[in-house]
Amino acid sequence: MKRISALICFAVLFLAAACSGGKQQGQMHPSLALTPAGVRQIRSGVNKAPLFQSAVRDLYAKADEALQRPVEVPVPKDGGGGYTHETHKRNYYDMYYMGLAWQISGNRAYADKVRDILLEYAKLYPTLGYHPMTLSPVRGKLFWQTLNESVWLVHSAMAYDCVYDAIPAETRSVIEENLLRPVARFIMEGTPDNRANFETFNKMHNHGTWAQAAVGMAGFAMGDEDLVRQALYGSREGGGFIRQLDCLFSPDGYFTEGAYYHRYAIWPFVLFAQAIDHNMPELGIFDYRDGIITRSVGTLLNMAYEGEFFHINDAMEKGYDAQELICAVDIAYAARPQDRFLLDVVQRYQGTVSVSDAGFKVARDIAAGLAEPLRLSSALYRDGAEGKDGGFAVLRGRGGSTLTFKATSHGLSHGHYDKLTIAYYDSGHEVLSDYGAARFHNIEAKYKGHYTPENKSYAMTSIAHNTLVADETSHFGGKIKESSKHSPRILAYSDEDPAFQYVAALDSCAYTGIRMSRWVALTELPFLQGPFVIDVLKAESDKPHTYDYPLHYNGHMVSLSVPYTRASETMKAFGTAPGYRHLWLEAEAAGAEGSTSYTWLCGNRLYSFTGLSTPASEVKLLRSGAGDPDFNLRSEPCLLLREKNLRSRTFAGCLESHGNYDPRVYETASDMEHSCIGIELEKDDAEGVSLLYSFKGGERLKVCINLINNSMTIKY
Amino acid sequence: MKRISALICFAVLFLAAACSGGKQQGQMHPSLALTPAGVRQIRSGVNKAPLFQSAVRDLYAKADEALQRPVEVPVPKDGGGGYTHETHKRNYYDMYYMGLAWQISGNRAYADKVRDILLEYAKLYPTLGYHPMTLSPVRGKLFWQTLNESVWLVHSAMAYDCVYDAIPAETRSVIEENLLRPVARFIMEGTPDNRANFETFNKMHNHGTWAQAAVGMAGFAMGDEDLVRQALYGSREGGGFIRQLDCLFSPDGYFTEGAYYHRYAIWPFVLFAQAIDHNMPELGIFDYRDGIITRSVGTLLNMAYEGEFFHINDAMEKGYDAQELICAVDIAYAARPQDRFLLDVVQRYQGTVSVSDAGFKVARDIAAGLAEPLRLSSALYRDGAEGKDGGFAVLRGRGGSTLTFKATSHGLSHGHYDKLTIAYYDSGHEVLSDYGAARFHNIEAKYKGHYTPENKSYAMTSIAHNTLVADETSHFGGKIKESSKHSPRILAYSDEDPAFQYVAALDSCAYTGIRMSRWVALTELPFLQGPFVIDVLKAESDKPHTYDYPLHYNGHMVSLSVPYTRASETMKAFGTAPGYRHLWLEAEAAGAEGSTSYTWLCGNRLYSFTGLSTPASEVKLLRSGAGDPDFNLRSEPCLLLREKNLRSRTFAGCLESHGNYDPRVYETASDMEHSCIGIELEKDDAEGVSLLYSFKGGERLKVCINLINNSMTIKY
Repeated sequence: MKRISALICFAVLFLAAACSGGKQQGQMHPSLALTPAGVRQIRSGVNKAPLFQSAVRDLYAKADEALQRPVEVPVPKDGGGGYTHETHKRNYYDMYYMGLAWQISGNRAYADKVRDILLEYAKLYPTLGYHPMTLSPVRGKLFWQTLNESVWLVHSAMAYDCVYDAIPAETRSVIEENLLRPVARFIMEGTPDNRANFETFNKMHNHGTWAQAAVGMAGFAMGDEDLVRQALYGSREGGGFIRQLDCLFSPDGYFTEGAYYHRYAIWPFVLFAQAIDHNMPELGIFDYRDGIITRSVGTLLNMAYEGEFFHINDAMEKGYDAQELICAVDIAYAARPQDRFLLDVVQRYQGTVSVSDAGFKVARDIAAGLAEPLRLSSALYRDGAEGKDGGFAVLRGRGGSTLTFKATSHGLSHGHYDKLTIAYYDSGHEVLSDYGAARFHNIEAKYKGHYTPENKSYAMTSIAHNTLVADETSHFGGKIKESSKHSPRILAYSDEDPAFQYVAALDSCAYTGIRMSRWVALTELPFLQGPFVIDVLKAESDKPHTYDYPLHYNGHMVSLSVPYTRASETMKAFGTAPGYRHLWLEAEAAGAEGSTSYTWLCGNRLYSFTGLSTPASEVKLLRSGAGDPDFNLRSEPCLLLREKNLRSRTFAGCLESHGNYDPRVYETASDMEHSCIGIELEKDDAEGVSLLYSFKGGERLKVCINLINNSMTIKY
Repeated sequence: MKRISALICFAVLFLAAACSGGKQQGQMHPSLALTPAGVRQIRSGVNKAPLFQSAVRDLYAKADEALQRPVEVPVPKDGGGGYTHETHKRNYYDMYYMGLAWQISGNRAYADKVRDILLEYAKLYPTLGYHPMTLSPVRGKLFWQTLNESVWLVHSAMAYDCVYDAIPAETRSVIEENLLRPVARFIMEGTPDNRANFETFNKMHNHGTWAQAAVGMAGFAMGDEDLVRQALYGSREGGGFIRQLDCLFSPDGYFTEGAYYHRYAIWPFVLFAQAIDHNMPELGIFDYRDGIITRSVGTLLNMAYEGEFFHINDAMEKGYDAQELICAVDIAYAARPQDRFLLDVVQRYQGTVSVSDAGFKVARDIAAGLAEPLRLSSALYRDGAEGKDGGFAVLRGRGGSTLTFKATSHGLSHGHYDKLTIAYYDSGHEVLSDYGAARFHNIEAKYKGHYTPENKSYAMTSIAHNTLVADETSHFGGKIKESSKHSPRILAYSDEDPAFQYVAALDSCAYTGIRMSRWVALTELPFLQGPFVIDVLKAESDKPHTYDYPLHYNGHMVSLSVPYTRASETMKAFGTAPGYRHLWLEAEAAGAEGSTSYTWLCGNRLYSFTGLSTPASEVKLLRSGAGDPDFNLRSEPCLLLREKNLRSRTFAGCLESHGNYDPRVYETASDMEHSCIGIELEKDDAEGVSLLYSFKGGERLKVCINLINNSMTIKY
């Protein structure tokens, strides 16, 4: 209700603004990344903002390079990484850089070149049908998918906005009528025979956000209120940018696809919001939904370890230095200058600012010494527009060690089948890892730069994650439709005591007839050198199952506490089931009575996992890369505990960081042996679980989980 | 002759110094790392040398920690990484830190604690027989090998030297008679029933240098001329430190074991030389053999890529930041202050200085702005005391790309069986790699931290290197005795033209009846984006052989230009021969008629190798890790070309760096395809080799090798 009335209120404001005549759309240029007032401030204050100065130097270098390049607007042919794709991509960056360079420098050559490129596009565009590649259901014209076309228009609109006043009206009219408006209409409506674009434009999805930002920003640049209105409120009921702000982020600013796509999704949000703020300040877009845009930037920044985003779902290596973040952090700061930690992000991780009003404010305030340290925190981020679809927890220890727990909804098409997954970061490394996506972005030879088939057959499967797998089957049978219907339930979350933080969640839908719940804690124990992670994963069923508990890690195997057999002359794939056929079985062993420990080396530390086991437990050492005809998978190791033919099983374990291994400087090694020497499951019933961990120094740790009031305690 | 007379001259000088009475040995304290004059300078100038200030802060932190620790001198029991080993190691560092701290601070608690530890050792030492572990043929008492005992004495002597004046004479006498002199004598003479130490002390080997430095420095600390004399001139004919300076380095300052052990070997050289210089300046030790000590430091610094030493022979990851280098660079600078580039090494890679007279000079001069940039260069370093045992070449391109070529002598017990091996570094990565050693230093679980059996069975074998392997057999049959008898002959070396540098060598002893020669060039071609490496490896024989040409690389496979079959459900070891049984056969293919190309991704660039091939050529994609029951090998990839049943074969190929792959910041990709599309062997006879490389832009490169006058030319 509240949301709907906010939306109505926005629409009314919009009408008021549009009708008042007090503010003529399209009259002020530039009005997207820059404003006339901003340009004046920049010109007079640039000497006092070294970071901006160097950003402008970089900009000029790029703009000058673009100036030298012959205008080249090829007929679209290739996919990602291919020639025409990369050329059209380069063109929008070229126009964007030159547009900004013209505004800052006043050198008309930049503006003329932008005009020339736009005119060349205005010749080509009307001749184009759909792109010849049919990989995407939402095909573009310049690119194989409309998504890239939207990104093209976002940048071209910003470029056009910058050079608007430098182009005669009749030339503008050619550019607008033959290019910008047709591209905007195509993105918004598609073609009569193919409504995929129309659907996407009104969809609650980040491709929709891009489409809306593109159309809206082109609208502002051309002074086309109709385009702006449709971008803001949809071209049909239930669509539009404002509504995306309600739907795509949870109340905690969590973006349902996870950090990697959050990074991408935030870009059109902040770019369009900045344009809205410049053109329609009365809408107060940055205040909407309690400032959801800037709050979401904060959430995204906290979804990272040492500047690198967590790898859940279809993630690749991205961090604070991604261009989207440079832009987002600048715009967030301009909107909320009280968030001075944003300046620290810029200083420490980005080292540059965007050439925009916002980027200038950031550079100026950094120079004025206003930066405050970024402090990452523990947090539970609820998922879902209403915050009711599970969540993602981040537990941070004193030294920066970070335990993550994924109990979110599926996460749309980039989601993976892994409920209740953990990852762990320590001493600069992703120690317990998430494979992320199977993709070599923009490398043509690797499935044209697209997600490779192994993304579905391995990376998305449950076995590729640090979660429970029953009967070699992925959660929800690997079916997105099913997986999208259910989310885990967060049972508990506590970060009050920095030395004992925990989170727990329950899932009873991933497998029919199996109830799985997981309790994980990040603790600091006075008798241990490093952090101590407790993991209790309960699987309960009426029928017998094979339960697999994988731990994917980074590093090199050091030791296993039981004798094992290593594949020596021949090595076989671990299985034939989805996911399983992509793992080589490097070694196997039977568990010890009581507990089994495994130690590996990662960076300058050792990590030891100790888990409950019996001689019937099977221990497997695995490595990704089997069943991979095109070398699309990275070669990464995994430890797996398997329990066969059991109705219920509680996997209880712990992970220690220990040792100080310095082979480089002083050649010293200390604390190379793990401390936990035994785990006893003292109680495990409907009321709770009670565990006793023993350590080599004679210490004991009692862990109690109360399943009635959903709480956890430790005692030592 | 010249060398012998220099030695005699030194001995005469020594006698003169010893007899003159003008300089009483042992009168001045401290006189090893510090001198009274140096301490005065430090005390008065420390405020102007921030790097030294922070080194002193670190020193105090370590010394204070040591002060808090109870004295613990356990009965020796464990090997490297084990408890007693690490405790004795910690003890000598503790004493060393506290000794220095006493000199700088004047806080007597430090001196007293050094005294207490020494006294505790003086109680234990006389009770000790040989160390219970029998891994080493040169066993120690405190440690499993005497080498560690020498390092112990070097540090303990420095500590004792520092606290000498703070200990009453009668206590000193206990320490000297029950500990320092017995340790020195043991290192020098061994025991009547075991002369291994005696042999080592007089051997031309870095263990001998350590032994001599230990005995000599203890001699200086105690004023024992006899010990000093034997350290300098041997305890028998042909031994001694001075002679090591003649034998262990080539005229170019190359150390025969390669950079990794050069780094270790240089330590006792510089430490003892510094002590000699302080106590017997009239010997002019730093001028000996045209300043071989400091020149050798320069050579070592040039045996690195971006501060990381080349990985030839038994190498692990070490670089300029190793403690030995901190010490060596400081001492070299104090000896040759005109080498201001040393200050740059300290600033950029080490960030700290040693607490010593030398370290203070470095810190003071850095603060005074005297640093000059370190400029690495191309070089051919001859191997062997006379410079006649082959050599090691470093070719450096404009952007820092570095091609290395190993055509050295065997390199003593840490040498590998790989003549004519190449490695290549570009854009911050070791692109064509050398496996180095199979070892996990100080990790007890990995063969007690020692070289693992796989060091011999894999890392040392020829197939583990980028060289030619015939009939699956290592060079010299993997026999060190044979390998140590022969060295390749350098045929050519040219670094005059930075855009075309080359080196070549010939070996006709590694395989009976096979003559192998290799010509490699690092070039820059105007039509290519990155450096272009040319490799021509000729194998000639009267009898048919199987020739393997492996390229070990870092990175991820991108594409192979011919269809291949990847191991999918089962994977087999590549072979059963030494080395071969440790490689998994991941994929195989038949070569194309003409040439075959292979591309991989490393960092943000692509690397493409293109090599001559026929359909009879076999292409194998391999990965280390087979036949490795204890997970002692790292998992690393290799490309291999195999030619079967041929008398002679010329492997001609090239390696391109291309592409600019940015998945992190801008998600752009350019030049992802290699340029070389064909190689033609136009001529290949006794007079020379002529090759024609074709490129996709239509360019051609003609490569001519003249085998009569041993020269190489290129033309495009």
